[in-house]
Amino acid sequence: MNKQKKTALTKPESVLKYDFINASELKSIKVKRKRQPSSKTLIKDILKGDITALSRAITLIESKNPAHSKKANTIINGCLPFANNSIRIGITGVPGVGKSTFIESFGSYLTSLGKKIAILAVDPSSSLTKGSILGDKTRMEDLVKNKNAFIRPSASGNSLGGVARKTRETIILCEAAGFETIIIETVGVGQSETTVHSMVDFFLLMKLAGAGDELQGIKRGIIEMADAIVINKADGDNIKKAKIARTEFKRALHLYPTRASDWEPKVTLCSALHNEGVSEVWRLINAYTSHVKDNGYFDNQRRSQNKFWLIQTIKDKLQSNFFDNTNINKELMLQIDLIEKQKTTPFAAAEYLLSL
Amino acid sequence: MNKQKKTALTKPESVLKYDFINASELKSIKVKRKRQPSSKTLIKDILKGDITALSRAITLIESKNPAHSKKANTIINGCLPFANNSIRIGITGVPGVGKSTFIESFGSYLTSLGKKIAILAVDPSSSLTKGSILGDKTRMEDLVKNKNAFIRPSASGNSLGGVARKTRETIILCEAAGFETIIIETVGVGQSETTVHSMVDFFLLMKLAGAGDELQGIKRGIIEMADAIVINKADGDNIKKAKIARTEFKRALHLYPTRASDWEPKVTLCSALHNEGVSEVWRLINAYTSHVKDNGYFDNQRRSQNKFWLIQTIKDKLQSNFFDNTNINKELMLQIDLIEKQKTTPFAAAEYLLSL
Repeated sequence: MNKQKKTALTKPESVLKYDFINASELKSIKVKRKRQPSSKTLIKDILKGDITALSRAITLIESKNPAHSKKANTIINGCLPFANNSIRIGITGVPGVGKSTFIESFGSYLTSLGKKIAILAVDPSSSLTKGSILGDKTRMEDLVKNKNAFIRPSASGNSLGGVARKTRETIILCEAAGFETIIIETVGVGQSETTVHSMVDFFLLMKLAGAGDELQGIKRGIIEMADAIVINKADGDNIKKAKIARTEFKRALHLYPTRASDWEPKVTLCSALHNEGVSEVWRLINAYTSHVKDNGYFDNQRRSQNKFWLIQTIKDKLQSNFFDNTNINKELMLQIDLIEKQKTTPFAAAEYLLSL
Repeated sequence: MNKQKKTALTKPESVLKYDFINASELKSIKVKRKRQPSSKTLIKDILKGDITALSRAITLIESKNPAHSKKANTIINGCLPFANNSIRIGITGVPGVGKSTFIESFGSYLTSLGKKIAILAVDPSSSLTKGSILGDKTRMEDLVKNKNAFIRPSASGNSLGGVARKTRETIILCEAAGFETIIIETVGVGQSETTVHSMVDFFLLMKLAGAGDELQGIKRGIIEMADAIVINKADGDNIKKAKIARTEFKRALHLYPTRASDWEPKVTLCSALHNEGVSEVWRLINAYTSHVKDNGYFDNQRRSQNKFWLIQTIKDKLQSNFFDNTNINKELMLQIDLIEKQKTTPFAAAEYLLSL
């Protein structure tokens, strides 16, 4: 009897049910509720495709509690041998371009093909905005109910590196849980696009037609990263403009040198709202995948991404270990002052600070 | 007799002079010849504008001998209070654009105005090519003979950071020696342009007219850094093409957002070979200087450049201290191997390596 009621604790309507439980009973109930499944159980359940276990493990990854991090590492290590068998797709585009609508439509299409799809996000600003990306799942109302789709909003964090790490680790768990298509959504805030690009196999840039000058206003680097540019909202009166935009983008892409992948990036139209052009995007991704698997680029890229993250993590840690030190910080300010007074050079100051 | 020949070996004309000196005498001569002026003397002489002292001190900066570095630091510190009173100009452009010819013409013009001009270079590749930039002083034959011009080729080094540091320190000495215009030449190899940009007040991009598509093939970032674009070889049949290029560049520059300096970058024509348009470049630099000195950007930029170099040097050192360690390197290879075998993640590997 007790056990049934416990789970209902967070729901206000169930408060009355507990009226007859005394304080000590309640305490024992709480303790029981807190008990989490072991790492072993979680690994086993994740490998079975259990969404609850997957969510729990991701929560451990995202936790700041060192005990949780340790447990998360154990789970990740247990899942690792079963990860990697997926296609990882990065999707970027300015707010309003229709990323959520596209993912809803694209995800539904994939699940209709019998695929399992996981949707993650990288949004380092989410700690401020309380999760602007994927936070509003109402835009994906079909997908949310779909048991073959797993949606997880961006981990919060004030450093992109931290958010990125959590997402990379989440990818491993999702893959081990049998999700063979991983979508990672991002908005073009600061370096987040580059970060997402460095963890995916295929990078998709979403654009709108007729939203002013097509080629200006996009960071040039983004175009260079895109394996496909998808022009969304190509419907109704927009179709003509969308076609012009497609021509412009195609021309622009021709000006860039050949990629290491030897893949010629494609430009395609789509109306996510009307489910048009969505299957075409999937066809395109498949064409890409077989192309880069054939020429070895797929594996090479994953290998170099791993190396990149290894080196990057070390660099980040070396810096944070140094600069987060209170004493160093104080001395740093003093040295900056001395530099401004022309009493030392940046190089001499650096040597001094490193000798502390 | 044997010993004598050795020293004289490189200077054939002096062999005879030493023929009558015996070995022990020669040794004492050698010691005398090697004795360098003290730091104090060098500082004093540099402040007097003595070119020999300046060159010697720069050689100490460039030396890999720790005793020399120590002495160099003393000299830099002695010169620091007298540095900073200059305009530092960065010049970049692809090989063949005529940088050397321009600097010859520009430098001669400045010395004719009574200015003292120092010409340095940042070329991290020079250790391989034995100094491609400024190495060939024959292209600056007038300037080489001009006592108000000081030309120093790029320090050699296999890291851009190392070359940059030496150049930054050389600037200090040149300024202390009374050179009020410092030109730093670079070619667009890798990050060298960004590096030079971060040590100058004014950044000049040299271009040719009619060398194919004007706007493609330039790294977009370079245009964003340029305070002026100078189209060289605007003479003879080239003038028409140069004017078209000027229009194109002006239009392109308009597409970029306003600079922090609030300076609208200028595009100007020049024929360095015929000394045309060179004074115009100097007028332009003066207009820039008074603009940014008035609005405070000049000092702000130098301050943030100092901070940038301080932080950058610390970051570089933290990394090299870590990655140059033989044991770390061995372990790093092992971890990369484990990552490829899906036995660890980049993050867990990083933690392990940092714990060593």
